This record gives sequence, C-alpha cells and structure tokens, in this order.
Amino acid sequence: MEAFFRPRSVAVVGASEKPGKVGRVVLENILRSGFPGRVYPVNPNHDTVLDLTCYASVSDLPEAPDLAVIIVPAPLVRGVLEECGTRAVPAAVVITAGFKESGREGYRREIELRETARRYGIRVLGPNCLGLADTSTPLNATFATRAPLPGNVAFMSQSGALCTAVLGWSEENHLGFSRFISLGNKMDVDESDVLEELEKDANTSVIAAYLEGVQDGERFLEAAARVGRSKPVIVLKAGVTQAGARAVSSHTGTLAGSEKAYNAAFRRCGALRAETVEDLFMLCRGFSTQPPPRGPRVGVITNAGGPGIIASDALERSGLVLASLSEETTAALRSGLPEAASVYNPVDVLGDAGPERYRLAVSRVLPDPGVDALLVILTPQAMTEVEETARAVAEEARGAEKTVFTVFMGGAESACAEEILREAGIPNFQFPEEAVRTLRAMREYTEYLSRPHRTIVRFDVERGKVRETFDSVLAQGRKELVEVEAREVLAAYGLPVARTLLATNLEECIRAAREIGYPVVVKIASPLILHKTEVGGVVVGIRDTDELINAYEAVTSAARKFVPETSIWGVLVQEMLPPSRELIVGMSRDAQFGPLLMIGLGGIYVEVLGDVSFRLAPVSEEEALEMLRELKSYGLLKGARGERAADIDAVVESILRISQLVTDFPEIAEMDINPLRVLEEGKGCLAADARIVLKE
Amino acid sequence: MEAFFRPRSVAVVGASEKPGKVGRVVLENILRSGFPGRVYPVNPNHDTVLDLTCYASVSDLPEAPDLAVIIVPAPLVRGVLEECGTRAVPAAVVITAGFKESGREGYRREIELRETARRYGIRVLGPNCLGLADTSTPLNATFATRAPLPGNVAFMSQSGALCTAVLGWSEENHLGFSRFISLGNKMDVDESDVLEELEKDANTSVIAAYLEGVQDGERFLEAAARVGRSKPVIVLKAGVTQAGARAVSSHTGTLAGSEKAYNAAFRRCGALRAETVEDLFMLCRGFSTQPPPRGPRVGVITNAGGPGIIASDALERSGLVLASLSEETTAALRSGLPEAASVYNPVDVLGDAGPERYRLAVSRVLPDPGVDALLVILTPQAMTEVEETARAVAEEARGAEKTVFTVFMGGAESACAEEILREAGIPNFQFPEEAVRTLRAMREYTEYLSRPHRTIVRFDVERGKVRETFDSVLAQGRKELVEVEAREVLAAYGLPVARTLLATNLEECIRAAREIGYPVVVKIASPLILHKTEVGGVVVGIRDTDELINAYEAVTSAARKFVPETSIWGVLVQEMLPPSRELIVGMSRDAQFGPLLMIGLGGIYVEVLGDVSFRLAPVSEEEALEMLRELKSYGLLKGARGERAADIDAVVESILRISQLVTDFPEIAEMDINPLRVLEEGKGCLAADARIVLKE
Repeated sequence: MEAFFRPRSVAVVGASEKPGKVGRVVLENILRSGFPGRVYPVNPNHDTVLDLTCYASVSDLPEAPDLAVIIVPAPLVRGVLEECGTRAVPAAVVITAGFKESGREGYRREIELRETARRYGIRVLGPNCLGLADTSTPLNATFATRAPLPGNVAFMSQSGALCTAVLGWSEENHLGFSRFISLGNKMDVDESDVLEELEKDANTSVIAAYLEGVQDGERFLEAAARVGRSKPVIVLKAGVTQAGARAVSSHTGTLAGSEKAYNAAFRRCGALRAETVEDLFMLCRGFSTQPPPRGPRVGVITNAGGPGIIASDALERSGLVLASLSEETTAALRSGLPEAASVYNPVDVLGDAGPERYRLAVSRVLPDPGVDALLVILTPQAMTEVEETARAVAEEARGAEKTVFTVFMGGAESACAEEILREAGIPNFQFPEEAVRTLRAMREYTEYLSRPHRTIVRFDVERGKVRETFDSVLAQGRKELVEVEAREVLAAYGLPVARTLLATNLEECIRAAREIGYPVVVKIASPLILHKTEVGGVVVGIRDTDELINAYEAVTSAARKFVPETSIWGVLVQEMLPPSRELIVGMSRDAQFGPLLMIGLGGIYVEVLGDVSFRLAPVSEEEALEMLRELKSYGLLKGARGERAADIDAVVESILRISQLVTDFPEIAEMDINPLRVLEEGKGCLAADARIVLKE
Repeated sequence: MEAFFRPRSVAVVGASEKPGKVGRVVLENILRSGFPGRVYPVNPNHDTVLDLTCYASVSDLPEAPDLAVIIVPAPLVRGVLEECGTRAVPAAVVITAGFKESGREGYRREIELRETARRYGIRVLGPNCLGLADTSTPLNATFATRAPLPGNVAFMSQSGALCTAVLGWSEENHLGFSRFISLGNKMDVDESDVLEELEKDANTSVIAAYLEGVQDGERFLEAAARVGRSKPVIVLKAGVTQAGARAVSSHTGTLAGSEKAYNAAFRRCGALRAETVEDLFMLCRGFSTQPPPRGPRVGVITNAGGPGIIASDALERSGLVLASLSEETTAALRSGLPEAASVYNPVDVLGDAGPERYRLAVSRVLPDPGVDALLVILTPQAMTEVEETARAVAEEARGAEKTVFTVFMGGAESACAEEILREAGIPNFQFPEEAVRTLRAMREYTEYLSRPHRTIVRFDVERGKVRETFDSVLAQGRKELVEVEAREVLAAYGLPVARTLLATNLEECIRAAREIGYPVVVKIASPLILHKTEVGGVVVGIRDTDELINAYEAVTSAARKFVPETSIWGVLVQEMLPPSRELIVGMSRDAQFGPLLMIGLGGIYVEVLGDVSFRLAPVSEEEALEMLRELKSYGLLKGARGERAADIDAVVESILRISQLVTDFPEIAEMDINPLRVLEEGKGCLAADARIVLKE
C-alpha cells in the first residue's frame, strides 16, 4: 500500500499530449505537484510526452516503477496490468472507466482484471476512479483540475464526482489534505485497506470518507475501531434508502434494515457519521484545527444578545451545556467589563466592545476549570474592530488545550478576520449553529474515546446440543425451528424458558398439566404452524381438567383446518406465567455487519410505537444495558406509577446469552424471543415463545 | 406606518459631521441611498452638516418632516419626541440605546417615552435599534456600514447585531431586500405592525423575521395568518430555552411551555419556522426566486451517482418524494441520452455530459406532470462545461411554473455558473441537502395554503351554569375546583361524565351506590385533597354493600390523617366504567398565545413516553383529529392487535367542547381531564376525573 502514496517512480500508462485528454491531465498534475521521483510516460504512439521520454510499453521501461497509473481504454487495461505484474510493479491506479459500473460486459471485464491483479499480487486502486494524491510526497496522480491544498485531513471517496466537488469547496474554505483517494469501484483496494494505511501516515490526523457501502463489514469495524483511537474517522454514508427487498419473516428483520446496521456499526467502531456533505466539511475543519472538547461545557462570549441566544438554543438542543463560570471568573469579568455587560455565560461584552474587552473575556473564560470549549461570537457593529479583535482572540487562545471556535458573523464584514483566525488554527463559522453542531460531533468523539473497553462475557453453555438441533432441523429440509426446538436451543444457552411439555395425545396432555400444575397454557405443535395465535392454536389460563379437554379439542381441530393431520405433533402444555412486563429480543443478520441484536418492549411498544434499539453482537454488558436505556419505554421497566422495577439484570444477562448464541452460530439467520417475560426485580425473566430461522 | 418607509422628508436629529459618529453614518446613509425627499439635519451646534443646512431643533424646521430619525443621547430623546409631537410628525425612529435594555433607569425612561409617543399619536420604531431601510423609496436610515441590496425580501429583526450580520452575508450571497427593519425594544411599533405594513408593500414578496418573542400573541396570529396567504412569513424564533419558571400544577402545564405554544402558534398561522440562521437565509433565497412546489414530487438530474444518492437520501428523510417519471419522459430520455445513462429518477446524464444532455433532460423532466419540482445537480468533471450547462439549464427552466433549484457543486469550480443562474432567478446551492431542506420548507408553505379554512364549531352549552360555579369558587377564595364542581362544568359543556353522586355520610353512600348500581368506585371529597389516589382516597371495583362500608371507612379515615375533619365533605360514589382506553386532555394558558390544548394517551404514554400533541384553542374539527393523529400511540386508538377501534369521533367532539370551554372562559388557567375514558367505536367517551384551576 505504501507504494501508492510514496512511490519512488511512477509510470503513466496512456500518457498523452493532447489537451483535455485525461492522459495529459494526469501527467501534468504529477509534474506540477512537484513529485520528486522519476516519471515515465508510456504510450506506443509517442517518443516524448511533455518533453519526457515516452516508452512504448511497461515492459520497455528502464526500471519497474513503484506505481503505475493506467488510463488506457477499458479493453486494454488487463493487458497493461499483466505487463505490470510481469515486471513486479507493486501498485496500480486504474483510472479508466467501463467496468462493473457499466453493465454486463464491464462486469465481466472487472472480474478478469481482479483475477489478474490477484495472480500477480499487485494492489489496484479503482477502476473507474479519479486517482489519488499525497501532498507531502508530493504527488498528485489525479485528473482533477484542482490540486488539493496541503493539510492534515485524509479524504477517501467512493464517488469521483464528489472528489472534484470537495476539491473546489476545500480550496474556497482553505481546508488542506494530507491524502486524497478516489476509491472507484473498489475492485481490490477498499476503505479498510486505506484506513489501515492512513493510520500509519504521520501527516494525517483526521480521516474523512464518503462511502455508499463497505466491502467487508467485519474488517471495516476492526480497522475503524483501531484507527479511531488515534484519529477521528468521519463518514458520510450515503444510500440510506437502499434498504433493499430482502425477504424477512421476523419482527426483528422487519424493524432492522441496513440503515440500522450501519448506525450500530458506526457506534461500535466509533466512526462519526456526518449527516450531510456540509457536516462532513465542518467536522473536518473542526478536527483538523482544534482539539476535541474534553467535556460538554461550553463558554460563550458575544458582543450581541441575539446571537448569544441563538448559540444557547443550539447548545441546549444539541445536548451540550452552557458552562457555569466560577465565581473567580465572574468577579474578574465584572471588574474588567462595563456595568451593563453580562458576566454570566453567555458573556456579553456589549455592542461597543473593542479588542481589549474580548481579550479580557477570553483570557478569563477559557482557563475556567468549568469550561471545556469556548465559542467567541462577534457581530460587526459600529465600533467593532474586526481585525484587531480577531488578533486578540487568537493571541489569548494560543496554547490553550481546549476547543476554541469563533463565529465572526456578517460574511464580507468579517472576511478580514478569517485569515488571522485561520493562521491561529481557529476555525471561523458563519453561524452559531454550525459551530455548535461541529462541537457536538467532536464531543461525541471524546465520549467514544472515554468509553470503557468492551468486555465480552462468555457463559458456560451446551454448544453441542444446539449444533445437534440445527443439524437435525436442516437434515429434515427445514429452515425454521418449531417452538419446542427453539426452546431447547435457548435452554442450552442458559436462557430461562417457561416450563413446557409436549403431549402427543389427550392423555399425555392431562398428565403434563398435572405435572406442571394449573393454570396452564396449551399451544398447537406443528412444524407447519409458526403463527399459532392466528390459527386459533393457543388457549391460555386453563384452570382444570375440564377446561384442558376443551382446549385440547379446540386447538387440534383448529389446526386440522390449516395443515394435514400428519404434521400435527400434538400440543405443548406450558406453565402460565404471573403478570409481567413483556420484551421482544431478536436478531437479524446483516449482510455487511453480521448479527444485529434488537430489543424493545413487547406488544404495542414495538408494533405501534416502534420503540426499539439495536447493537451489533457480540455485545458487552454495558452495551446490553445501553440498549435498554435507549428505549423510550425504559421507564416502564424501571417501574412507572409506583410499580416495582422489572428484573433488569436478568434481561441484561439474557441479551448477553443471546448475543453469544448468535455469535457462535452464524447459521442463525433470524431469531425472535417474543415475548421475553420479565418478572419483578430479583425474580428473573422467562422466554415464553421463540422463533429461530436458519440460513438455507 | 407608511411614513416610515415612504416619507417625503426626513429629519436626522443628532446629525453630526464627526467621522464614526452614528449621527454622521445615518445622515450619510440617507444621502447615499439616493433618498429623493428632503433631508433636514438637526443639531444645535452646527449651521451645516455635510453641506446641508442644519437646524437647531425640530421646532425650527421649515416643515414638519414625515419621519424623524433620533440619535441624541438617551436623556434628551423624550424632549425631541415632544417637539416632534408638537409639530405633528407622524413617525420617528429612535436609534439611541439606554432604555429598557439597560436597567431600571432605562426602563423608567422607556415608559415615559412611550407615554409621550402615545400622547401625540406618534408611531415610534425602537428605541435601541439600527434603523430601517426601503430599497425602492430608496431610503437607508440605518447606521449599518453596508446598505441592503435591492430585492423582494423584507427582513425585520429584534436583534440589531443580527441585522448587520445579515447585511454582510446577503451581500456575499446576492440576496436583495425590499425593506429592512430593526425592531429594537419594540416600545411601540412591533412585529405585527410591521407585518401588516409589509402585506401592503408591492415590492415585498417574502417576509423574514428574527424574533425573540412577540408583543401580542393574538394580534400576531391574526396578522401572520392573513399576510401569510399572499406572502410567506419565515421566522427564526430564538430563546427556546427561556421556558421560564412559571409555577404549574397540571400535567398539561408541565408538558406545555412557551416552546410548544410557539410551535402551535406558528402552525396555526402558517408562519414557517426556520431552525437556524442559515435556514432562514436559504428559505429567503428559495422563496424570493422560485415558486413554491405544488406537490412533494421532486425530479433529480445529475451527472454523477454519488450526489444523486445524497439527494435521494435527503428527499426520503425530508418527507418529499422522488418523482416517478412518465413512460413518455423516460422514452424520450432513453432515445436522447447514452445507453449507460439512467433514465429513471434520479436521471443520471453521466460524468461526460455536456450542456446538451442537461438541456434534453431538463426539457423532458420539468414538464412531466408527475414532477412538482426539479433539482439539477452538477459536479465539475473532466468534460464538464459548467458555464454553458448553467446557460442551458437556465434557458430550459425559463417560464416554468415549477420550482427549479440547482446544485452546481465544487465551490470555486462552479462559481462562473452562479451569476448565470442568479440572473435566471435560479438559486444555486452548494450541497444537495441544503436544496432539499429549502424545498421541504417551501412545500410546507403550499401545504399550509391548501389547508381547508378553519371552521370552529360551536355547541349549544350552559354557559351561565359554568359562570355561576366559577363565581362561587372564587367567592370562597379558592382557585381550584373540587372534582364535583369540575364535573358540573364539564357536564354544562356537554361533556359526558361518569355518573357520580356525593354522599355526606355512610347512609347516603349506600343509597347512592344502589341508585348507580354496583360495581362502583368511591372517592374522598374534600377541597383540600386534589391528588386523591396518593392519600389512599380512592377504592375501585366495589361489588356490594359490605365492600362499600369498608371502602367508606377506609377513604374517610385515610383523609382524616391529612386534612381537618371539617374539610371532608364526604365521598363521591361513581359508576365503575368498562375497560377502555384512557386519554388525557388538558389546557394550559400561554402568556402570549392563550389557551394551549394538549392531548395524549393517558397513563404511561404521557408520563413515560411524553407522547402528546398541542394546538391553540379554539381548534377546528380537522385540527382536533390532527392532534390525535400526531400521537405516536394513535395506532392504539385505531385498534392495534385486533382490538376494536376506540370511539375517535367522540374524542374529537370532546376536544371541541373543551376548546369552546377554555375559549369562552379566559379565567381558566389550567385544566386536565385525566383520564378521558374512551370506549369502543360508537360507544362514546367519559370524563372520569377532571381538574380545573382558575386564575387568581
């Protein structure tokens, strides 16, 4: 991978002199970027290109280049890569389009190209990409008309078009890049490869990405989590509406979807999700210039009430807090500022404030131990000295280890301050809300960093038993377990299940009920009936033998209307549980990120209110508890209206055991425990019904 | 009011020649703006100011000016206004600060100034403001260093500092203003006065405001609703955190708060609420240049997949929809675009698209009857001709009566297109999400315009009976009605109440229970006990006389522990209602906007989930139904899990009757019906318990 960014020599295969040709633009960009290594144009039709000796083919080159940039027409790319392979070129960028993105023919071409790349062990970026740049090498091997400014942000993008847009925007906004990578079709090199490479790059301190998907969920999670510990990873994930038409049969499957999985994945690995392109830029600006805030407490200094109120509103909405200033701070402000000034947060230095009032306020508020970040707002008024104030703020903020943002408003009116602030490493925002949004996201990063290490508890379970059950189900050509099988699986993983016996005739049924003790529940048992209630296959609250006989007749005759007699195994007799709160706990397997756990309060809370939360398995104890706390209906578990609290510890343990089950058995495609009956504190919980669906 | 914006003559009282003085800046701004009327500097210390004859006082002026702009020190303002009054000057702008905003002395000064203004019938803008401007008069009577560009947006602001920031920003972004008004302390002229004046102004087609509060809620509602029919009114309401520490004792009061009232008010009058300063600008740009979309269906044309996906995501999130193109449209696109192009929405004209492909796509997609608005996205790529494409889009969009926005990305890369698009009246956005947010808000406006006229039903009620009850309660020095009184009030307004009898001793109690019929409920009746359940004052499900006797003893002896024997009136015997769904319906009176109705599903839904909705009373039938539909738990009323639907019609009628009650009696400060028991469809609903609190 290193060869992509720090090659000693680069071949441009398909180099051209013809103005406007991509082959010319790339070569020019490489030369103009000041690339210090050797550059070899390759093109059989020229002797020289842009005054450089041009070679007829890669085979003819005087040395094997570290990097080949390939711009030849699509049908010729594979041949060129073969040559590169023969000469042991370690890395190639295929800019050429006409592969997977362009129909069947292109798709086949890409498969072949990948095969060639794999065969020679050559790493390939693209095809169908804009190229890449490294501003410290320096090397600009893109065909963009603008070169990235140097800086400490690495940007990778699955959309080449977005790359060019970003370059234009960043130039206007003075955002500099360490590396700039257009991923193209991600035939070989993908986001995880790049992440790993960026981790090592000393010039990169912030990583930003535009992604429409990830190639390998597990690897991405691992790479992002590791890289994220030292450098924030900000992702704009597009394509939220591509939920797709995957057939799902469980509650959990219906409520999950790739969007939920991505959110859970980002949460897991600490990647920050940018909501919009603008947010992506804002976060890059914030992280690339200022340390993230160590806490949520924000000091605000302003020369006008209105913008101070706007900032306070935005802080409250974002979950950050207006810092309480210490008595020492307010006393110092009171003695230094005019009487009409507000010395509480937001500190209002008044409309006629000059640089010295700002200087005083910043020098007092910033070191206040109750302040984690500072927002300095200025509106240009009659007496305002914008430039001098910017200078004063920059001087006072120098060396501070806290986040300092400015909001010098008024566009053109404050333009002269921009450069001063920029040089001091202080990002200036046009509006208070933008600054607060950025602060909030940066705070999320420090929250992530301070999260305890995830410890995955492993319980002692009967794994072999589950293995047997699954094998037997699959051997029968079934995908879905019947209730009794599902119950066995849960029991094997230590999940408490309601006591249940299978009775194949009325006599057994009566015996089973006596053994369990009245009241009982009777449910039809047939592998063909999965929604028992819907077919009249369940009777609850059976108090004696007479009622039991009626119930037995009722459920079996109801079942006979729907399925052949031979498929009816009998009935399940189950203990009738005391009143309890009902949860639904489930899992659906995401194509990218694997087992996605879901939890919600059962019944109407899931069905009508959609009040559920998700995490990727395996989960830690903290995460299991977080899942519960995220529910709006969590208050009901804790005991609303004087009810006793539910046994939350028992629920957490159940979640952990299910987490272990679905992690141990990747063949589980979906499962629901619905309901998980939760008794009062200290009394545990019980899985009353469960569905498990295996992969085909 | 007209005199403020179209005066024939203006006096500048406190005019000065001293550079930097506000008195000089204002005079210069008036002169520079090209004001066609007569300008009179007033200052006793000068003979001329800026080559104009200067007068010693307003009394000395050769004519009474239409408008006086006052910049003299605060203690002298009142005297100047007296002189203006004597000479029958109709309007004055007081720029001077040092009034209400600056402590007790200033507060007193403002009261006196208002008194003077009222006495002479002189309208006053300010004090403590930046002034005002009208770009068609033209007149710029502000002390801002930048003059507003001419345009069709009127902007008023309660923050002068924000005015200057807006001027700077709008210059950079070419947003033009018809009128620009700094409201200052709103001593006399307030937002409603200005709204009414702007309605008449032919040069204003969009009204934007920054407000921290409104002076007169009712008047604002009326003015905004009327003006909003012809011109969109966009408000950035700041100060959401000022919920204040008003003592509230009802559920409704706790859940309401001024933020909820403002939202309900804006909804009522159709004012569009901007969430951020940036949104305010975006909306101004959208409305000032393009017609709002008639429907939610948006066509997207792009030359790159990524931004197309970003736009689709944003559309889905915002509640707008990606339009389905007609077969005719897709066929025309297919025949005119390259094979690899996507002819479905988003239409992808491919990365190498020149102006002609954009021209074709716009000319086909825009007239499609399934398209309400069009988003044209361009990313500058190798072959892109930005300028020519802008021209092609502008030409094809000309005369269209649909909303057309462009997103020519890449900042500087697309700068050359900005002017072409601007001249064609097409706002260009930097990012797809901004364009979608703006479209969404504009769509809200057309939705508002198409809402049916609000019809307020009035029921035949016994108003006099309620009057008597309130009078008697107040006469006893109480503020809160006891349950039986509250019940009488509800019954007088035709609200069905659970059958209840007051029993002052055990004998009466037994008789009452027989009359009502078992099972019954017994509740303690004492004006000092408002939370009956908490003190053990309620027993439900009483099935016979034995149980009744026990219950009577229990509730009366429990009550004696808390309140003196003399305050216990006896017990209420109430019919026991069948199982039903429970709602809470309440009202709290907002200081600005009056009666704010609240509805929510009772019990945990309100307490734990906070699932409630608000409207200002009086509400129409549609609004009452909307309130219910807005509840997340609405599905439970309609009948989830096979339950029969609740009697929604009866709930709507109850809301309407309560709406009438709280509108008829402004002395009701707060009320809760908790619960309102809702029976199955066709069986009605019943108020089981009610609290009514009167104003002191």
